[in-house]
Formats: sequence, structure tokens, C-alpha cells
Amino acid sequence: MVFFVTISISIFSQSRDGNSRYVGIKSPEILSDKSVIFRLMAPQAKEVKLSTQFINEPKLMERDSAGMWSVKLGPVKPDIYPYCFVVDGVQVQDPNNTYYFSNEKLKNSLLDVPGNEPLIHSMQDVPHGSVVYCDYNSKTFGGYRPLVIYLPPDYEKNSRVNYPVFYLLSGTTDTEETFFKVGHTNLILDNLLSQGKDKPMIIVMPYGNPEISAPTGTSAHVSVSPTGEDIIGEDILNSIIPFVEENYRAIKSNDSRAIGGFSRGGGQTLRIGLQHPEVFSWICCYSSYIGREEFEKKFQIVYANPEQTNKRIKMLWISVGDQDPWYKQTSEFIDLLKANNINVKTMVTEGGHTWMSVKKFLVGSTPLLFR
Amino acid sequence: MVFFVTISISIFSQSRDGNSRYVGIKSPEILSDKSVIFRLMAPQAKEVKLSTQFINEPKLMERDSAGMWSVKLGPVKPDIYPYCFVVDGVQVQDPNNTYYFSNEKLKNSLLDVPGNEPLIHSMQDVPHGSVVYCDYNSKTFGGYRPLVIYLPPDYEKNSRVNYPVFYLLSGTTDTEETFFKVGHTNLILDNLLSQGKDKPMIIVMPYGNPEISAPTGTSAHVSVSPTGEDIIGEDILNSIIPFVEENYRAIKSNDSRAIGGFSRGGGQTLRIGLQHPEVFSWICCYSSYIGREEFEKKFQIVYANPEQTNKRIKMLWISVGDQDPWYKQTSEFIDLLKANNINVKTMVTEGGHTWMSVKKFLVGSTPLLFR
Repeated sequence: MVFFVTISISIFSQSRDGNSRYVGIKSPEILSDKSVIFRLMAPQAKEVKLSTQFINEPKLMERDSAGMWSVKLGPVKPDIYPYCFVVDGVQVQDPNNTYYFSNEKLKNSLLDVPGNEPLIHSMQDVPHGSVVYCDYNSKTFGGYRPLVIYLPPDYEKNSRVNYPVFYLLSGTTDTEETFFKVGHTNLILDNLLSQGKDKPMIIVMPYGNPEISAPTGTSAHVSVSPTGEDIIGEDILNSIIPFVEENYRAIKSNDSRAIGGFSRGGGQTLRIGLQHPEVFSWICCYSSYIGREEFEKKFQIVYANPEQTNKRIKMLWISVGDQDPWYKQTSEFIDLLKANNINVKTMVTEGGHTWMSVKKFLVGSTPLLFR
Repeated sequence: MVFFVTISISIFSQSRDGNSRYVGIKSPEILSDKSVIFRLMAPQAKEVKLSTQFINEPKLMERDSAGMWSVKLGPVKPDIYPYCFVVDGVQVQDPNNTYYFSNEKLKNSLLDVPGNEPLIHSMQDVPHGSVVYCDYNSKTFGGYRPLVIYLPPDYEKNSRVNYPVFYLLSGTTDTEETFFKVGHTNLILDNLLSQGKDKPMIIVMPYGNPEISAPTGTSAHVSVSPTGEDIIGEDILNSIIPFVEENYRAIKSNDSRAIGGFSRGGGQTLRIGLQHPEVFSWICCYSSYIGREEFEKKFQIVYANPEQTNKRIKMLWISVGDQDPWYKQTSEFIDLLKANNINVKTMVTEGGHTWMSVKKFLVGSTPLLFR
């Protein structure tokens, strides 16, 4: 008599953390030249395409006689890319890949093409921090909300050390997990820290979508205020920062608080950060901007006295990809800030409005924080 | 000029944590009588079915003229259920639902049907613990492996309190996330603790699938040893426990260590726990068993001296659902233990080999731990 049937032969896929996991069919298979084969068993499907951010449009896959669809792409530049199958018009995650894109809308898996040398976002043999999932009681939204928090290596052991805190907001339809699971923020920080480039810091990643929760127990649909971003700002100031500073060893001063974000989170960052220099001295805006009209209307405090602004804000970072749809507007916004004599650090990278770009922005901006 | 287009009207879905998230189409929609409507926009699909664990076989959905497929089921007994759409034969997560079943094989979403009174696994207004994702360096597997750790409420604040530790292994194709994201182990513990039923404890959830990782940098397929479970046991003893006890405030004695698991993890639990009473005094086996042959062959230490065994093992818990495929064998195993005069706590619940049953087992067994 035996216990369970033990799997005697299996095939493993490479995970984000260098770990191997059981899978049935090898997909994605990364070849030695960095070409990638994607496979999906779908005998009944009429049409299967492969959609991913390193090709311009979905690629038709080929069906074999058993109903296995496949396509070979590349060689692919080492990085982490979202992809999905489009099965008769429906987006499908790769059933043989455990790693997915944390998102409210896109059902994508993640392809992690390793470099010949370890990439800055890869799991390396360096001291590792941890990532905490917790729930804070939000006065603004009236209920518990999720929070993901990166703690630097040895946080639990160094029980007398306090750390600066970087509040980091993800983009529209992203979740509080996206900076961790897709952006590899924890691994980037671990690696930069081990190279002496970053200072150890806590990173707090809220769920940033602007909305007001429906009252508990109802299924009411709710409208979002046009100033949704400010609701998040209120929540950060009134509930998130107090929760973090009560439960974690955070340094409680504006010099040791940064705020940053991608896309919609970048806009929230500018609004919250520029309006509250008494709370945040460091501002990192990734692939976002505030237009001239809003800037001039709402941020007199910033541009009316540039000298004071430049003293109060230790860093205003603005970065964008050269193929980002917001590239032109962001460039104009940078010009506007400069025309108003406001110090701004900028980075323009090759790439679009993607998480491949976000990782570069983290690598560029976090070494400048808390100096 | 405005920043991004602000979403002015949106629809929200209820999340596992009582939070609301943006979705495009309301699916699943839970009606007041606990009936549930599932919807999927798939104009090009030939056939769409809804598959879930509260119905016996996939249910054909109906297509409207716009290509929206829908089906109404229920009323459904309040609980958390995995479900997916089967689009032309391919399993598809619900694109309008952020909550998914953490698994290497099943691509399922989660339906969370709330009770009229809060269920024991629901987010309630009680003190909350946190859940930590970290990576330990495994001597057994040669590289970093993921670990998910529940820390009880106020762990970070009570910096002088040490806690007992429950090592908890999930089932085949589950991941280290499944006890957290599907089993709501953290919320169950928070709730039981607030009711004075559980003792505060740390819960450590490894990635438990038995395998030997391929050497770094290769894409070699690897065979799994028939004693794969023992590899995990070695890893727990040699790498996981030392990591946990170095980095977290764990009480370092067998009286304060429990091991438990579901399905394959339950078998691993019995093997590791019964063989190492010097390490674990508490054993919780959910929906699993060791057959007579293996038990008699490998566990002389346990049954040869029942009196000693009953003294060394503070609790041996075995539970199973009455519709579990392993129900009969588990019952026989319980009889075998009893025939050998080994004390055993048992629980037979309504239900199958599912995570609905696992939650009941956690509610039944954790209050007995560390007493």
C-alpha cells in the first residue's frame, strides 16, 4: 500500500526566484540563444495567438495534429515580459507557468529571460530582505486595506535600527503586489544594497486605485471622484503613514520619507509629494506628469518660490521611456519645471509605458534617495 | 490640460479582504440570495462552460447577441470556491476577478460567498497579523527557495515575546502561497486568536513539492526521487528551521514546534513528524494518510512503544472529508493507529479533498496546538 502516487518523472520551469516548479508542458521554453518557445494544448480552439510586449502585434501560433499550439520567438533581450495566449479572442494565462502579472485587468503570465550575467532584478546570492503583506485600517475608506511592505535584509535582526521609508504607488489596474511580483523591487533593492549603491530602506506599496469603497455589506456600484488621487493622498497621510510608523521601525521625518509611483501612481506622487513637503522630501515620478494647467493652478506653492521649493524638496525625479505615449507631455512638463527654476533629476530610457521601464527607473532613482 | 483620464464611473468587485477593486464587467456577481452570476465576454468562442467545485460537472454558459456568456448558479453555501471558465476546452481565469487560486496547474479564480454573519475565514475588525514572503538559502536544494510566514498580531511591537511555530505544507501543485491566499490561514488565526481560541503562533509555509532543482543555469529536466518527501523533510530540518529561528522570535523546543499539511503535505507531515519527535511535538495531518505497509515498515519507532509515543507526541491530529477520495484509507489508518494504542485526535467533516475542507481542519486543529 502506498501513500499518494509519487511523480516519478517531471519537467520543471524556471521561476522568478531561481526555484524550479512542476509543470506539465514546458512553456515558456527559453533556448540557449534566448529564443523562446510558447506552447498551449488547446485541441478545440479555432485560433490561438501569442501576445507579448516585445512584439508589436499578437503572433498566430501553429497547431499540431494533437492540438498543441506553439510559436517560437526571439532571440529575446533578457528582461521580464508579460505575455498571454489569445484563445478564440479570450486572454489566457499560460497554464504551465506559475508566474503571473499581478493586475486587475490583464490576465498575463510572466516570461523571465535571464541574462548571461545576472540582471539587477534577478535573484542573486546576496543578503535578502523580506516582503510583508498586511492590512491597515483605513479611516478614509472605512475598512481594512492591503499593504505590501519591503523590509531590508536583517530588519528583524537589527532590532534597534530605524529606516527611511519609500512610499511607492503602482499604475492603473495594477495591484499592491505589482511592484513586488512584476517589478522585483525587493530583488533590485537587495542587489543595489549589496553593491553599496542603495541605502537600506523600507518600501511601502499600497493598493493605489482611486475609488471610494462601497459601504460594507452592500454591492453598490460607486462613482469615483474626479480628484480620486487626493483620496489616496488623504489615506496615505491619515492612515498608511501612521500604521507604518506605529508597526515598523521607520524614521519619522520628512527627510526620511520618499514618495514615488508609476503611471497613475506617478501622478498621485506628484500631487501628494509637491503639496506636502512637510511630509515627503523625496519625489520619484515614473512615466507620468502633471500638465501645465494643473501645475500652474494647483501648485503655486511649488513654482512661486523656486528657491524655497528646491530647499524643501531634496529630489524631484522624473523619468519616462522614449516610446512611452506620455513621452512628449513628460518632456514638456520637465521643461516647464526647469523654466520655473525648479531642480529636477531626469532619466529618459529606451522603452515604453511598461514594467521593463519601471525597473530601470528604480535602478536609476533609488540610489539617490536619502543621501 | 489634464493628467490621465480619470475613470469617472466604474464597477467594483468584492475582494478577499473586504476591499473593492476596479473591474470592467461584474463577475462573479453575488446576489442577495447567494445565487451567483458568472460572466465572460468571448464573442469568438464556440463554447464556454463554468467549472467550479460546488457543482459536479462544468455547466454550459449562454451567449447573448453581443458575445457575453453568462450562467446563474446557486444559491451557494457561503465559502470560498475555485472556479474557471472553459473556453473551447481551455481553462481560463475570470478576467474580471483579481482573486485567483495560487496553484501550479489549475488556473482558477476564487469566488468568495460571504455569510450573513462573518465567517471564520473572513476579514473582520480584529487585530491582524501579517504575512511575510522571504527567501531562505537551502542547503538541500542549493539555492534560494521561497517561504511564506504568518506573524501574529503585534509581532513587530512585542519585540520581546517569543512564539511557537507551526510548519505547514500545502498539497501537490499548490504553492507556498496557497495556505495564505486560498486557505486564509492568516485570517482564520487572527479570528480564532481574537476569540481566545488559538494561542498566538508563527506559521511557516514552505514550497513543498518534492523535487531536486536542476543545477543553476541549466535547463535540465530532473527526476524526482521516490522518497521525494524526505528531501523536503531534510530541507525543513537543515535549512528552514534554522532560517526561521535565526530571523524570527521562535521558541526553540519541540514542545513549541508543530508540523502540518494538506494532501501530499499531509503525508510529508506524517513522515517528518513521526520520525522526528525530538523536533516536533505536534502533528496535524489534513486529508492524507500513511498506509499500513509503510507505517509498519518505517515507523516501528512509533508503534513499538505506544506509551512512549503518546508521551513524546503531544497531539497527532488526522482529519478528512467524508467525500474525500482518501476517506476510506484515512479511516483505516486511524483504526490502525488506534489498534496500536496510539492516541489520535480525529475530525471527519462534510466535504471533499478541497480547500473548503482545509479551512475547517485549521479551525478544528489550531486551537489544540501548544496547550
